[in-house]
Amino acid sequence: IMTCEIINIGDELLIGQVVNTNASWMAEQLNLIGVNVQQVTVVSDSADAIENAVKRALLTHDVVLLSGGLGPTKDDITKTTLAQMFNADMVIHEPTMQRNRLFFEGRNLPFTDINRKQAEAPNNCIVLDNLCGTAPGMWFDINGKIVVSLAGVPYEMKQLLQNEVLPRLQQRNETVILHKTVMTTGMGESFVAQRLETWEVALPAHIRLAYLPSPGYLRLRLSAFGNDKTLLQSELDRELSVLQSLIPDLIFGYDNQLIEEVVLQMLLQRQQTVSTAESCTGGAIAQCLTSLSGSSKVFKGSIVAYSNDVKQQILGVKADTLQTYGAVSEQTVIEMAQAVRQLLHTDYGIATSGIAGPTGGTPDKPIGMVWIAVASAQRTIAQQFQFADNRQRNIVRTTVAALNFLRTEIHN
Amino acid sequence: IMTCEIINIGDELLIGQVVNTNASWMAEQLNLIGVNVQQVTVVSDSADAIENAVKRALLTHDVVLLSGGLGPTKDDITKTTLAQMFNADMVIHEPTMQRNRLFFEGRNLPFTDINRKQAEAPNNCIVLDNLCGTAPGMWFDINGKIVVSLAGVPYEMKQLLQNEVLPRLQQRNETVILHKTVMTTGMGESFVAQRLETWEVALPAHIRLAYLPSPGYLRLRLSAFGNDKTLLQSELDRELSVLQSLIPDLIFGYDNQLIEEVVLQMLLQRQQTVSTAESCTGGAIAQCLTSLSGSSKVFKGSIVAYSNDVKQQILGVKADTLQTYGAVSEQTVIEMAQAVRQLLHTDYGIATSGIAGPTGGTPDKPIGMVWIAVASAQRTIAQQFQFADNRQRNIVRTTVAALNFLRTEIHN
Repeated sequence: IMTCEIINIGDELLIGQVVNTNASWMAEQLNLIGVNVQQVTVVSDSADAIENAVKRALLTHDVVLLSGGLGPTKDDITKTTLAQMFNADMVIHEPTMQRNRLFFEGRNLPFTDINRKQAEAPNNCIVLDNLCGTAPGMWFDINGKIVVSLAGVPYEMKQLLQNEVLPRLQQRNETVILHKTVMTTGMGESFVAQRLETWEVALPAHIRLAYLPSPGYLRLRLSAFGNDKTLLQSELDRELSVLQSLIPDLIFGYDNQLIEEVVLQMLLQRQQTVSTAESCTGGAIAQCLTSLSGSSKVFKGSIVAYSNDVKQQILGVKADTLQTYGAVSEQTVIEMAQAVRQLLHTDYGIATSGIAGPTGGTPDKPIGMVWIAVASAQRTIAQQFQFADNRQRNIVRTTVAALNFLRTEIHN
Repeated sequence: IMTCEIINIGDELLIGQVVNTNASWMAEQLNLIGVNVQQVTVVSDSADAIENAVKRALLTHDVVLLSGGLGPTKDDITKTTLAQMFNADMVIHEPTMQRNRLFFEGRNLPFTDINRKQAEAPNNCIVLDNLCGTAPGMWFDINGKIVVSLAGVPYEMKQLLQNEVLPRLQQRNETVILHKTVMTTGMGESFVAQRLETWEVALPAHIRLAYLPSPGYLRLRLSAFGNDKTLLQSELDRELSVLQSLIPDLIFGYDNQLIEEVVLQMLLQRQQTVSTAESCTGGAIAQCLTSLSGSSKVFKGSIVAYSNDVKQQILGVKADTLQTYGAVSEQTVIEMAQAVRQLLHTDYGIATSGIAGPTGGTPDKPIGMVWIAVASAQRTIAQQFQFADNRQRNIVRTTVAALNFLRTEIHN
């Protein structure tokens, strides 16, 4: 198996100004194609630090993947450092020169000598086209090892890694690796593991299951390793269908789709609309839906009824309901969901009310208790959830649960 | 100056499952007390990898700070690896044993042998009390160098670093370092730098200014280095007051306060309330305010009027206004802000309407164009902003701008 060290270059990473999200993204992509990342190293924008790190990494790993230090300013020295290490001369890379010139001319900016220098590259590397920025990537073959240098700007790095680096690495890797990610919500990791246990222990050695939890979600990733792609795909499909049959109630999507994307798609297909009446989520569901481009076709608006006044005056929740059952109750969320659906003339109405915390809990209604309702033309139905004591997490979990609840109520 | 390498241990960091937020937080804290972080290294839960990394780091740095690999499961091997490297025997640390026993008994959980092992530590280290978990920290003095090992769970690591590690490092560091962070919004880094240039270049060498941008914000951190704390504090205060006089219009707070915290405090003090009518922000301002515990005292609710129907039917924006000026206009946000203030009976009403992108722009109203209005008993005033073409960023920047706009309109 191919081994790799990732080296991220940049002072901003060493003073804690920037979180190194590049490293985790790169590591995930490499692991997905079967490259084993054994170390991540962050060093400063210093020629010595870069040279020492690369030399040391080349002693033990097959691939050394660098990001950062390719900008036009004088603290960006990765390119000249690598050229010197690998005894290369600098030559102009014409396609990059043309692309960069067009970029500057198109914005009426001067194409200066510093910008021209961005199109230079060592004469012993394969130049990788950067379609999102001015600094091309570089691929060196050094005594049977591979050194790759990419821009540090995340979207430039991602484009280069996905389009130029991963396909080249896959060509050199004989193992075929296939993945399928199943998106689930509604049950914690350990309980899902129990439901999958018998099947999971019986999986053949070349098919593995990974549990990837994040707030509100649990991703399940099936990976199959082998030589015969067609065979592997049919094996993966078979195991996937078993997995689907074991937890049909928990699956809402595939391949890193978010619940708001699934819901948006379903509503777009049906040309249906939704509105929300939010108390404990305070606008988080609306915010989540409107974060997606195109959401205006299905999302009409929201009444964030944080105070009981607003619940009564705008949504028309009965004073009697609030007094008898309280704001956090089945009766209240049902009235809220129906009211917002009617007021905003949408096909569906979602309502939330709960104790987000960290204060406000009672023995009857502890912190983390949440009621969610979904109203449609057919029926209005409410469900109670019990989350934990972290306010931010409770809001996220309620948002995911509410959108998933809507998903199960969507019909033609 | 003291130099440091951070070593984060954990397979989850090398497969990209977890973003290494520990490294940036640790690096920031160390830099704040004048410790120079020169490298961050991430290695797997393997004894060889840990030992090699620590040995190599000890060759060049004064302090080696480890996190991770101190849990009770069999893949957690940092403690035994360090004990072996430094020829130590394991001994029970009684205070940890007692704390851990109480923890398990208090939750009616069995206190097993594996849990007991958590209270063991090498006999040649200073044991650092972990008040948030079962794995104590370890401080080794090795031939004039320092090796510190902390739990990898972020809040455990933070408690240990702040309470146990930073004070000890400060004792060994003779330099006094003082900081003051000024929170600004409303102007980009390069333009702020122009306004500060004359003053900044004239700063004495032992006082430095750092520009720390993040979406919607620009933090300015003044750091003073010296020996005499009293003198240094008065120098820092003097420079701070110059800075304040240069950009009084941009400053909204200090020391990492967020704009929603500042606004919440101001409204709480005056016992005043606010509501929002959001179009392009889609609930983001409401979500931002309600993310703070205690916000229910000042935030009553929001009308997320994403569609024009909702603007007309719930907020009563005139059809004529929408037709003549459009949804993204001064006239529309003024009507929205006044309407939500009256409907929800609050002292202030905020309204937003804009083209968040990535589609929907026109020559007249390009992507990133946003109108914001604030209504109060005294007056209603609107302002136009021009942001860029990233949808998520435009929503964040509009949210910060709207809350800052409200801040300037708050009065008794």
